[in-house]
Amino acid sequence: MPLSAPYLALKALVRRGDLSNPEVGKAISEMVVTAHPELMRCDEVALRSEVPGKTYFAFRDGERISRPINQDLFISDPAVLRERFDDFFKDRLGSLGPDEATRTIYTLAMSFCALYDTKKTGDKKTPATYFEILIGHLFAAHLGVNPTNAVKIVDTGVKLPTDFIFDLGGTNPKLHVPIKTSTRERVIQAWAHQRILDGVFGADQYRGILVCLAETLMKVKKLSVVEVCLPDQWRVYQRFLAKMTRVYYLDVPDKYRLLATGTPRIDVKPLGYFFTEAAALTV
Amino acid sequence: MPLSAPYLALKALVRRGDLSNPEVGKAISEMVVTAHPELMRCDEVALRSEVPGKTYFAFRDGERISRPINQDLFISDPAVLRERFDDFFKDRLGSLGPDEATRTIYTLAMSFCALYDTKKTGDKKTPATYFEILIGHLFAAHLGVNPTNAVKIVDTGVKLPTDFIFDLGGTNPKLHVPIKTSTRERVIQAWAHQRILDGVFGADQYRGILVCLAETLMKVKKLSVVEVCLPDQWRVYQRFLAKMTRVYYLDVPDKYRLLATGTPRIDVKPLGYFFTEAAALTV
Repeated sequence: MPLSAPYLALKALVRRGDLSNPEVGKAISEMVVTAHPELMRCDEVALRSEVPGKTYFAFRDGERISRPINQDLFISDPAVLRERFDDFFKDRLGSLGPDEATRTIYTLAMSFCALYDTKKTGDKKTPATYFEILIGHLFAAHLGVNPTNAVKIVDTGVKLPTDFIFDLGGTNPKLHVPIKTSTRERVIQAWAHQRILDGVFGADQYRGILVCLAETLMKVKKLSVVEVCLPDQWRVYQRFLAKMTRVYYLDVPDKYRLLATGTPRIDVKPLGYFFTEAAALTV
Repeated sequence: MPLSAPYLALKALVRRGDLSNPEVGKAISEMVVTAHPELMRCDEVALRSEVPGKTYFAFRDGERISRPINQDLFISDPAVLRERFDDFFKDRLGSLGPDEATRTIYTLAMSFCALYDTKKTGDKKTPATYFEILIGHLFAAHLGVNPTNAVKIVDTGVKLPTDFIFDLGGTNPKLHVPIKTSTRERVIQAWAHQRILDGVFGADQYRGILVCLAETLMKVKKLSVVEVCLPDQWRVYQRFLAKMTRVYYLDVPDKYRLLATGTPRIDVKPLGYFFTEAAALTV
């Protein structure tokens, strides 16, 4: 597949343990810029959206069709895309504003995932791994610190594997950042890990920040799109397991956005907001 | 595939909501007795066991090979099998003794799963669903009560979907019974649900009993078998999430069996023991 060489180069870079390295950002940018014309050669298929207020399409290459893409969030004009990327990689994400930042990151994520879907060589984990690298890099570059993937449980010597942990040093709370392309039933793991961190280290030493791509599901036969959301279950997790400080989405489901006005409150926002409020989340 | 008609009949029976019905047991027994000669027509392939003290083989039908089967636990003599089944379904499981009960249930589980592996039509969830029905029936018949699959969260009206819940009535603790063919990283869900139950209903109102088939993994190219175990993580879950009262396996990994002598203690045993100690676990 056309992406495999730049993707392997990206993974090699990441394996050196320096996710915050600007080279990682450049590799992502180059890969997506390479992917873009490939995607544009695919057919665009309009999908029947069963999600109020959102329009979705997919790329198709012969028999293979990509995951649904939110039309309002995907930047398909190469000139605009290039300009946003430039802004983005000059570490000026904040200046883009939360909404443009969200669209830019959505396009970075979706270009790879959609092209991968239309080629589908290799194992299914690749888009999820790419998404983890993308978000991991953005967080690491913005926070100026590289993440680890485990915490040492006091007085046992046991290392518990976790999603990304960003230790900002000093007495600042650390960030616990699970990253998922979609959640479905597996999301309870994020709250359970947060509970363990609270139990081991005490309250508010680690702040939970869950980052997700979307909750869309395509019904391939009908070419229709639904969002699969379980807000009632999330409320139970937030009340009886642990507190997630933020849940960020690139394509925010309305059912989750409304959790910010309920009890217990869960603040669900577009990911772009992280870059304007990160400082407040880490004191 | 040869099992699809009896399997669909079994699922139809179960859909009526009466898992404890002896007809469910009969349907399982008939299905496995039907599967047995089919399996015997497959080739038996010896596997290189990297699990100390255990011998594994697999059934092969042309290109397709089954999951690994523990030789000491699998009853391959049809006469013995029939006799055990008869004992079993006369509700005299206790009289078989824990070890023979474990072997009988292991054979009931593996015959279906292995035959399914060698045919592999339909979706991958089928062996997991069958295993859930098998264990659900055995628990329901033994306890004399049918399970539910959700709990109502007090003062919210929210129904949280769970694995099987057996409510024995009166002031007896209820049983929370997650069932998995293997655990890998997904097992944290069982502890997290137990934590929620403890938080919502108070300590010791629900007792967690996790039931698993095995943790074997076949390396297909080398035809070798390993067990994938994460005992350190389980200890963290048992200490910081909730207490599992028992973990039962049909093919118990030694690394988990040893958790019964550690801190915090996790009692991991062959499933056959449930039927001799169930009364003590439910008071």
